[in-house]
Amino acid sequence: MKRKIYLDSKPLPEAIENWHERLRREGLDRPLPPERINVIDSLGRVTAEAVSARVSSPFYHAAAMDGYAVRFKETFGASETTPIRLRINDQATSVDTGDPMPEGFNAVIMIEDVRIIRGKNISSHRLPLSEESQEGDDDSRSEYIEILEAVTPWQHVRTIGEDIVATELILPENHAIKPVDIGALLAGGHSEIMVRKRPKIAIIPTGNEIVEPGSPLMKGNIIEYNSRVLSSLVTEWGGEPLRFPIIRDNIDELKDAISDACSTCDMVVVNAGSSAGSEDFTARSISELGEVLIHGVGIKPGKPSILGIAKGKPVLGIPGYPVSAYVAFTLFAKPFLYAWQCLTMREPERTRAILSRQVASSLGQEEFVRVKVGVVGNKTIATPLSSGAGVIMSLVRADGMVRVPSLSEGIGAGREVDVELMRPKDEIKNTIVCIGSHDNALDVLSNLLKKRYPAYSLSSAHVGSMGGLIALKRGEAHLAGTHLLDEETGVYNIPFVRRLLPDRRIVLVNLVYRQQGLLVKKGNPKNIRGFEDLLRDEVVFINRQSGAGTRLLTDKHLRELAIEPSRVMGYEREEYTHMGVASAVLTGIADTGLAIRAAANALELDFIPVARERYDLAVPHDFMESDMIKALIEIVREDESFRNTVVGLGGYDITDMGKVMYES
Amino acid sequence: MKRKIYLDSKPLPEAIENWHERLRREGLDRPLPPERINVIDSLGRVTAEAVSARVSSPFYHAAAMDGYAVRFKETFGASETTPIRLRINDQATSVDTGDPMPEGFNAVIMIEDVRIIRGKNISSHRLPLSEESQEGDDDSRSEYIEILEAVTPWQHVRTIGEDIVATELILPENHAIKPVDIGALLAGGHSEIMVRKRPKIAIIPTGNEIVEPGSPLMKGNIIEYNSRVLSSLVTEWGGEPLRFPIIRDNIDELKDAISDACSTCDMVVVNAGSSAGSEDFTARSISELGEVLIHGVGIKPGKPSILGIAKGKPVLGIPGYPVSAYVAFTLFAKPFLYAWQCLTMREPERTRAILSRQVASSLGQEEFVRVKVGVVGNKTIATPLSSGAGVIMSLVRADGMVRVPSLSEGIGAGREVDVELMRPKDEIKNTIVCIGSHDNALDVLSNLLKKRYPAYSLSSAHVGSMGGLIALKRGEAHLAGTHLLDEETGVYNIPFVRRLLPDRRIVLVNLVYRQQGLLVKKGNPKNIRGFEDLLRDEVVFINRQSGAGTRLLTDKHLRELAIEPSRVMGYEREEYTHMGVASAVLTGIADTGLAIRAAANALELDFIPVARERYDLAVPHDFMESDMIKALIEIVREDESFRNTVVGLGGYDITDMGKVMYES
Repeated sequence: MKRKIYLDSKPLPEAIENWHERLRREGLDRPLPPERINVIDSLGRVTAEAVSARVSSPFYHAAAMDGYAVRFKETFGASETTPIRLRINDQATSVDTGDPMPEGFNAVIMIEDVRIIRGKNISSHRLPLSEESQEGDDDSRSEYIEILEAVTPWQHVRTIGEDIVATELILPENHAIKPVDIGALLAGGHSEIMVRKRPKIAIIPTGNEIVEPGSPLMKGNIIEYNSRVLSSLVTEWGGEPLRFPIIRDNIDELKDAISDACSTCDMVVVNAGSSAGSEDFTARSISELGEVLIHGVGIKPGKPSILGIAKGKPVLGIPGYPVSAYVAFTLFAKPFLYAWQCLTMREPERTRAILSRQVASSLGQEEFVRVKVGVVGNKTIATPLSSGAGVIMSLVRADGMVRVPSLSEGIGAGREVDVELMRPKDEIKNTIVCIGSHDNALDVLSNLLKKRYPAYSLSSAHVGSMGGLIALKRGEAHLAGTHLLDEETGVYNIPFVRRLLPDRRIVLVNLVYRQQGLLVKKGNPKNIRGFEDLLRDEVVFINRQSGAGTRLLTDKHLRELAIEPSRVMGYEREEYTHMGVASAVLTGIADTGLAIRAAANALELDFIPVARERYDLAVPHDFMESDMIKALIEIVREDESFRNTVVGLGGYDITDMGKVMYES
Repeated sequence: MKRKIYLDSKPLPEAIENWHERLRREGLDRPLPPERINVIDSLGRVTAEAVSARVSSPFYHAAAMDGYAVRFKETFGASETTPIRLRINDQATSVDTGDPMPEGFNAVIMIEDVRIIRGKNISSHRLPLSEESQEGDDDSRSEYIEILEAVTPWQHVRTIGEDIVATELILPENHAIKPVDIGALLAGGHSEIMVRKRPKIAIIPTGNEIVEPGSPLMKGNIIEYNSRVLSSLVTEWGGEPLRFPIIRDNIDELKDAISDACSTCDMVVVNAGSSAGSEDFTARSISELGEVLIHGVGIKPGKPSILGIAKGKPVLGIPGYPVSAYVAFTLFAKPFLYAWQCLTMREPERTRAILSRQVASSLGQEEFVRVKVGVVGNKTIATPLSSGAGVIMSLVRADGMVRVPSLSEGIGAGREVDVELMRPKDEIKNTIVCIGSHDNALDVLSNLLKKRYPAYSLSSAHVGSMGGLIALKRGEAHLAGTHLLDEETGVYNIPFVRRLLPDRRIVLVNLVYRQQGLLVKKGNPKNIRGFEDLLRDEVVFINRQSGAGTRLLTDKHLRELAIEPSRVMGYEREEYTHMGVASAVLTGIADTGLAIRAAANALELDFIPVARERYDLAVPHDFMESDMIKALIEIVREDESFRNTVVGLGGYDITDMGKVMYES
C-alpha cells in the first residue's frame, strides 16, 4: 500500500515568489486580450484602451433654458428705462431647453425675463416705453418680446462641447467602468467599447466520494460545494467561472478534463477531494501534462496546495477542506485574476484588535486564524474561532482573519493583533458581542434582531457562563449569557456577578428559565435514569467544557453522588454547545450528556430532567443605553414572535423574559 | 404660449421626510416578497428567512487523516516498550481522509504512526517485541499494524456535525449571501433558498429630442444615455433595471408606459428629456394616474424632481440633465432599493478635506458640488469641479461630493469640508494631484500612467500656470505644469518659481517645448494673420482664463501691439483648456483664439504660429522620492510610447523631455 506524504512545505513568501516569477517568465501575468462589447453592458468592466470622444456633447449649440434665442448684439443698450423689443421669429425665436440654437442666434433670454407684446409695428431699437404706438399696419399681427437688460454672448446656451469636446479623453486605459462612465461614453458617441476579457477560470471538482447537492446521500458521500464557493469567488473578482462536472478518481479522465480546460480557460483549478487518492491524481495529471512547480506550502490550512503549469496555463491543485480551499485559492489565484484585468487588488480593510483568547500555532507554518471581531466600548476585540480546516461555518461566522507568522508558536490573550477584515468596518461596529453560555434561544434572538434591524448583528461566542462574566470584566463583550447556581445560597447569577464584577454596574435581564437534563437516544436503549448510570461500564458520557454552567451542574451532581469524574467514561471529551452534546448522543459518540431540553427536541432525543435553571443576560449598565442593545432588549421584552418561537423550542419558561432580575 | 415654472422648491430634508412617510403609509417601504432560487445562483442575494441545516456536515463519522481506523479500547497500554499489534481488516481498517468510519471503529491512527508487519500469528495484545514468533499457521498471511502509543477516543475523526449540526442556524434572515455562505448552505443540505426578490425598476426615457446611441445624429438630437446610467445604478444597488423604449412627448403614450410599468415593476422612473414639454407631460401623467406628492425640490442640481405615486407604486420624475438625474435618483430611489431587499445602505466613505477653491452657492438650495480629492503630503485637498448640471464628465472625473447646506451662500477657499467619497480612499491616496497649466500631453501621460501602473492615477485641474505654482505653495498639489515667460529675462518658469516659492525646494522637469499660435477655421475664412486682426469688426476672439500662461502670452502680444483688450471682441469669454479654445473656434463661437498646435491638429483647424515655449513640470523636491511621482517621471524620461504619442500630437519638441531644467 503506497501512500504519499506531502512533497514539501515551502514557506509561503517563497512559494508566492516562485509562482509569480514563473508565471511572469511564461508571460502568464500579462493583461488578457481585449474584446469589444456594448457600452450598455460594460458596467464593472475594464477599459482596454483609452477612449476619446468621437463627437462633442452637445454637438450643436443648444438652449440651456426655456425662453427666446436672440442675437446678443441686438440687445445692446437695453435697460429698465430703455427697454428693447425684438420681433418674434425674426429677432427672437422661442426655444425650449435642449433645442438647437437657430442659425445666427447666440444667446438665450429666459422666459421669466421677457414680456410678450402683441402687434406693435415698431422698430426694435431703443424705443422708450412712452412711445409705444398702436397704429395698425403690415406688422400689426407680429409679436415682440421686450427686454430690460442686454445679454452677454452665449448666455444660457450650452455651447458645443460644453460637456465633452470631440477627441477629449473620456476614460483612460485600465479604468473600471462605473455607471456615470457609461453615460459619458454614450454621450461621446461610443456604443461599443474595447474592454479586457473576463478571466475564464475552469473549476474541476474531483473525487469518488463527492456528490452533487440534492443527490440522495449515502454514508461516505460528501456534498460537493467547494466548486460553488470558488466559482462565487471568481465572480466576485470579476472573472467568469466555468464549473466542470465532477471527475471521479481516474487519472485519464482527470487529465482529459484538465487538458480540455487548458484549451478554453485562463486558469484551471482542480479541487482535490479530501482523500489522498484524488490529490495524487491531481499532482500526477499536472506533471504528466506539464509541470508541478510546488507541491506543499507552509500554510495552515491549505498545506497540500499544488501549483503547476500545463499546456501554457496555470493549474492549481486546491485542497479539499473548505477553509483550506478558500485560503489557498485566495492566495494563489486572486492576484492573477486582478492582474489579468488590470484591476488593482484592493487591500482588505484592516483593524488592530485585542485577542480575547490565546492562539496556538505550529512553527514553520503561517497560520490563518478566523476571528470574530467586535467593538466593545473603545476596544476592538478579536475572538478566535477555534476550528479546523473542515469547518466552513468558521468562514461563515468569521469577521476577519489573523495571520500567525510561521516563526511564531502562537499569540497570547490580550495581545494586539492585525486583523484582515472580511466584513465592512461599519457592520462590525454594529455587532453586539455576546460571550458566555450557549442557549438555543440566542440563535432565535440573533435571527430576529437581523430581521427587525438589518443593520445590527448579534455574534455569540460560547465559552461558558464563567468565561462570559470574565469577558465582561475585561471589557471584551457587550453582554454575557449566564446560568450559574451559587450552591450555598441557591441563588442564580447574582452572587457571581457581585464576586467577579465588583467594580462594574451590571444589569441582569432574564432571558428564560430552562430545563437541563440528560439526553439519551430515542427509546433510551441503555436505560439511563440519572447520573448514577454514568458509572456503568457500557455507558459513555459527553461533557461540556470547563467554565460552562452546564459543566458545573454536572460536577455538582457527580459530587452529590460521590462519583469520581475519572470513573466516568467520556468525561474528558468536551463539547462547546448544547447542540454539540445532542449531536454526540444522536450519532453514538456518547450515550448521554447534560443539555437543555430544546437541544433534545431539536434532534428528537429523549430527555431525563435534572434541573430547572435561570438563564440571564448580564449587561454592563453603560451599554444599556446604546441603540443596538436597546433594540435587542426590546425584542426580548416585547416581541411576540420571539416569545412564541422560544416556547416552541421546548423546555422554556418565559415568565420573567425581559425582566430586570438585579441591578448593581 | 403657456410655459410651466417649477411648482415648488421644497427643502430637501422635508422632501425626503414627506416621501418616506408617504411610502411608509402606503406600505411601500416594506421588504419585497421572497422568491425561491438555486443556492448556486444566490451570490449577493438576501435571505428572506433564517436557514437552518437540514443535514449535519459531515453526516457520518469520517476519517480526518489517512491511516487506520481502530477501536480506541484496543490500543490501551501501547507504548514504546509494549507495542500493540492490531490485525488489519479485523482490528484495524485502512482509511483515507474523508472515508466513513467502519461500524464500531472510533479512532484513526495516522499512517505515519504505524509500522506494517506481515504474517504474524500473534495475539494483538501486549506482546513484547522480543516474543515475535515466525510460526506459520492459518493466520500467517495476515497483516498487522504495530503502534507505540494508545489513542484517544475519536482521535483524527471528523465526527458527525463537526462542521454543521442538523437544525443549527446557518444564516439568519436578511443576510447578504457571500461565497462561503453558498458552501455552508449546500453542506447543510439546501439546494434552493428563499431570498428577497430583486427590486425591478422601470426606467422610461422620454422626449422628442432624444435618440438611441448609434443613431445618425441630427441637430437637435440628444443621445439618450441617462437611462443607461440609471440602469447601471439600479444594478449596483442590487436591483433589476427594466429599460423601456423611448417615449415621445405624447401624454397618452407616456401614461400607457407608466401604467404598464406600474403593473410589472416596483418603482417607475420617468426620465424627462431636458425640454420643458417632456417634464410637463411627466407631472401630468403621474397626477392623472395617481398623485404628484412633490414637484420641485430645493437642491442643485436636481431641482425639477417629481415624486409621486401611481397605481400603488412610487413614480419618480427625474430631471433630464445627467448630474441632476444622478443626484435626484440617488437621493430618492436608492434608500428604497436597499430597504426592499433588507440591505443596509452602507454609508459612503467620507473624508475631511481642505477646499482649494471657493464654492459659491445660492441660499435656499442644498448644493451638491463635485470635487477632485487628493492627498498631498499630510493634507487632503478637495478641488471643486466647476461645471453645470449638464456636464456628465464632472461626475466621471469626480472623486467625491461636497454638500453645501441650503442656508449657506458658499464656502471659502481653505475651509475644511466633509466629502462623500465616490472612489475608495486608497485609490485617492494613489492619485497624483497635478494643478496648473493644461497641455494635451498631460492626457497622454495620465493614460500611460494608468496603463503601466494601474494603481496610480494622475488627476489634473486646469487653473493656469500661475494657479499651479500657487497650489504648490499652499501644499495642495504634487506637481504643476507651467509655461511662464519672464519678459525681462526671456527665461521660462525659473524666475516665477524663485519669486513665488522662495521657501520650497522645487525641481523643474521639462515636459516639452510646444508651439502656441492662433487657431482658425480650416482654410482661414476670415484671413487672420496675427493679433492685429483682433481689432477687425467681424473677428470674434476666444480667451483663456486669467492666470493661464496662454492668457499672459495673449496679453503680452496685445501690449506689444498696443491693443486695448476692451477693443477685442470676445476678450471677456474665457475657456479653461486648449481644447476648449479649439472647440470654440471649430463651432463658430469665436473666429480665433490662442492655443497649442496639438489642439489645432486634434480638431483639424488651421494654425498661425505665434511662439515656441517651454512647458515644465514643477515638482517639490520632497515628492520626487515618492513611488508614484517616481513612476510618473520614469514614464516622462524613458517611455518610448509616451515620446512617440506626444510627437504625434503635433507641434511638440521633446529634446529636453524629462531633463531637470532647474533645482532650487
